[in-house]
Amino acid sequence: MLPAAFTARLTRLLDRERFLTSAADCMAYAYDNSRKLGVPEAVAFPYTTEEVRAIVAACHDHGVALTPRGRGTGTAGGSVPENGGLVLSLERMHRILAVDPANRIMVVEPGVLNQQVQDAARVHGFFWPPDPSSAAYCTVGGNLATCAAGPHAVKYGVTRDHVLALTAVTGKGEIIHTGTYTTKGVVGYDLTRLIVGSEGTLAVITEAVLKLTPLPEAVAGVTAHFRDLTACARAITRIMAQPHVPSALEFLDAGALNLIRAHYPGLVPADTHAMLMIEVDGSASEIQTAQAAILAACADPELIQAQPVADTVSLWAARKALSPLLRDIAPKKINEDVAVPVSFLPEFLAGVVALAREHRVANVNFGHAGNGNIHVNLLVNPDDEAELARAMTCLDRIFELVIRLRGTLSGEHGVGREKRPYVGREIDPVTLGVMREVKRVFDPKGILNPGKIFPTEEDIAVTAGGKRHA
Amino acid sequence: MLPAAFTARLTRLLDRERFLTSAADCMAYAYDNSRKLGVPEAVAFPYTTEEVRAIVAACHDHGVALTPRGRGTGTAGGSVPENGGLVLSLERMHRILAVDPANRIMVVEPGVLNQQVQDAARVHGFFWPPDPSSAAYCTVGGNLATCAAGPHAVKYGVTRDHVLALTAVTGKGEIIHTGTYTTKGVVGYDLTRLIVGSEGTLAVITEAVLKLTPLPEAVAGVTAHFRDLTACARAITRIMAQPHVPSALEFLDAGALNLIRAHYPGLVPADTHAMLMIEVDGSASEIQTAQAAILAACADPELIQAQPVADTVSLWAARKALSPLLRDIAPKKINEDVAVPVSFLPEFLAGVVALAREHRVANVNFGHAGNGNIHVNLLVNPDDEAELARAMTCLDRIFELVIRLRGTLSGEHGVGREKRPYVGREIDPVTLGVMREVKRVFDPKGILNPGKIFPTEEDIAVTAGGKRHA
Repeated sequence: MLPAAFTARLTRLLDRERFLTSAADCMAYAYDNSRKLGVPEAVAFPYTTEEVRAIVAACHDHGVALTPRGRGTGTAGGSVPENGGLVLSLERMHRILAVDPANRIMVVEPGVLNQQVQDAARVHGFFWPPDPSSAAYCTVGGNLATCAAGPHAVKYGVTRDHVLALTAVTGKGEIIHTGTYTTKGVVGYDLTRLIVGSEGTLAVITEAVLKLTPLPEAVAGVTAHFRDLTACARAITRIMAQPHVPSALEFLDAGALNLIRAHYPGLVPADTHAMLMIEVDGSASEIQTAQAAILAACADPELIQAQPVADTVSLWAARKALSPLLRDIAPKKINEDVAVPVSFLPEFLAGVVALAREHRVANVNFGHAGNGNIHVNLLVNPDDEAELARAMTCLDRIFELVIRLRGTLSGEHGVGREKRPYVGREIDPVTLGVMREVKRVFDPKGILNPGKIFPTEEDIAVTAGGKRHA
Repeated sequence: MLPAAFTARLTRLLDRERFLTSAADCMAYAYDNSRKLGVPEAVAFPYTTEEVRAIVAACHDHGVALTPRGRGTGTAGGSVPENGGLVLSLERMHRILAVDPANRIMVVEPGVLNQQVQDAARVHGFFWPPDPSSAAYCTVGGNLATCAAGPHAVKYGVTRDHVLALTAVTGKGEIIHTGTYTTKGVVGYDLTRLIVGSEGTLAVITEAVLKLTPLPEAVAGVTAHFRDLTACARAITRIMAQPHVPSALEFLDAGALNLIRAHYPGLVPADTHAMLMIEVDGSASEIQTAQAAILAACADPELIQAQPVADTVSLWAARKALSPLLRDIAPKKINEDVAVPVSFLPEFLAGVVALAREHRVANVNFGHAGNGNIHVNLLVNPDDEAELARAMTCLDRIFELVIRLRGTLSGEHGVGREKRPYVGREIDPVTLGVMREVKRVFDPKGILNPGKIFPTEEDIAVTAGGKRHA
């Protein structure tokens, strides 16, 4: 499939074990955590920015699709090479180039794991706030490409808030340098944050200057159990309206709690229908103040109990129990990642429950409630076509609700190929047109991660179909 | 000068007192705080996004230069219509459209003053962190266009960190909507932060969704007096290397202190050659801890005294005394706004002093030291051509030093027309080329704030000349 001249050029560029073309090797780079498949014709493993430049230039010259990839932990199919071509695996560009605690900076290659950044920063009393649940095995490059977040975004912000500068290679095979090595800088356009979150469609990041944050002195928490979902949602709103911002504010609904109960009897009281796990950090006195304020905000006729928690192990017990269970149910779940303004969470969560009931679809919701970022899961039997159709209609109505409540279809997972059909619901055609033109500036031949983010004609037809069902 | 058909079209669009063409009226919109002049042929005052769209479309159709303007408080000439044409004054789009404390959001038109945002937020226990010294009379639109900052950026970040979404009109006269009403969102490219800091060259912002931050419980500080500049710079580095981030870390050098002494005898001790004003905020216990940590970081053989300050009036006394004096000396000063990594401040400040001495130019430095952001002032007699030439050579060498120390030529003032000739020192030609192409996407006819940011051929010749002198 690949032009022979292209293959020859890459063979000259890279030694044998860094340019793989066998079907078996390619299969290992055909999927991500979206469980969708797209088999590439080849996989390349550059070591340097210059090698990335040469590879992208070859793809540009020969019109070969290039899909950049970290460790393939994304859930939206962003690193699935749905159009074949070349996977550019950044996993061997895994050097930490500099740790500069005096300037609160770390310089890394894209293949460094998030956890390695945390470990290298911790020695100096710092951390890097983005903490997706895959932190132990996802790459910084992937975090940057998706503008990843995680539970601590409620206090610390998302990836874009913690990167100062990038070296990257555009779709023309040109090396660019964005941003500054300083915490302030206003010379030229902010290409750094344009590339962050662009899912590998504008440029391949080859080096990043990360901004580090001092580790909090201590961490503690609060757990709160509610008899009622709406009461819990109201408490979330009150917690976020008071000034002591939690460092995490995680929510589990009845469906999530039932999953836990079925496998861990006794871990969650029987009458809890919604639960909050709230982390606070800072000095001992700050923690005490924040805990008191948050306990007060939890007060509600439908509150069963709320209590301070000193150790983070018991704080996160329920959430940790949920993780493997979610993986178990994953083959039969539609996993969404919407976010709504926090004050609309009561209306949103009640709406999702009502829609799931109306369409007779099992539903589990949990997530980063402090950002209004809810992972909505619809559980379906993939062999039951009627149920699947009901679930897709239900999903469509949920997205309508999200947009009506001024929310977004993806808080942190990204568009990839999974949410591409729905992008037009959120972004108007003119703005989407500007984005397409920006894409053409960086990647005039459309070789970088083709097909991602922007809805295709077919996508639009499918979604319109979904709309009619509703 | 303006095409008659264009004037007729704007006359139809806007009532008489919102489309001014007399020379006297135009003169009032010919300058900003850079003290450079560029007289427009007309000034328009839209009320709505739709009116902005119609005006930009008219400029687009007739090829008329359009310079967006808030209140003209910028110091880099960003709102000076150096190519004439139309000034689009956003000052009458000054409505606060929504205050939404539950979601920590305020929605504003661009002509709202920064101080009005602060006042409206304060009622609900919030503030908006960007705080340029012109806060009382500069507009949010200008803050967004320049990615303004101020003393509190060291803890709270800059404008780009405190905006969630924009409505804007591109140079084609098309309305776009960027970002989300939520604190997380990864659908599509981050056009919000691309437009923030683009100095009105990509689009005219007509509405902004601002992210609010809870007011700190209390504010206090530390003042520190040093016998020696380098000792002070070392203390800055130590303060920023410990985890208790000050909410402001302002620096005054011997030149700045001498200006104060001349007008306010007794305010600053005679042997102080460098001074820090350090603000800390938070709870009483946090403040106490931070003050102790910062006092410890100030310890130095060349420290004269460092002491906690309870009231902010005495904390800021020296800085407040300096402000009017700087205005007095302004006609004869070259005012720069560089930033270097904090750990390089000792080398940078020593370097500036040496260069000023070498070129026999009076020099005053002060600024936001926690971000490494130093306002370097060269004081010259504008009638003394030889001195002016020495100052320009000295400036050139200072910029070389900044770049060598991985710094940036502008921390917060922006490029405008003042720093345009030097942009090529900081941004490589390929990256600058991408920025030019992005500009063409938003503004294909180049009508939006033409001439700003990107160096002209003439600029480059002038700077190269400067380089030869050095």
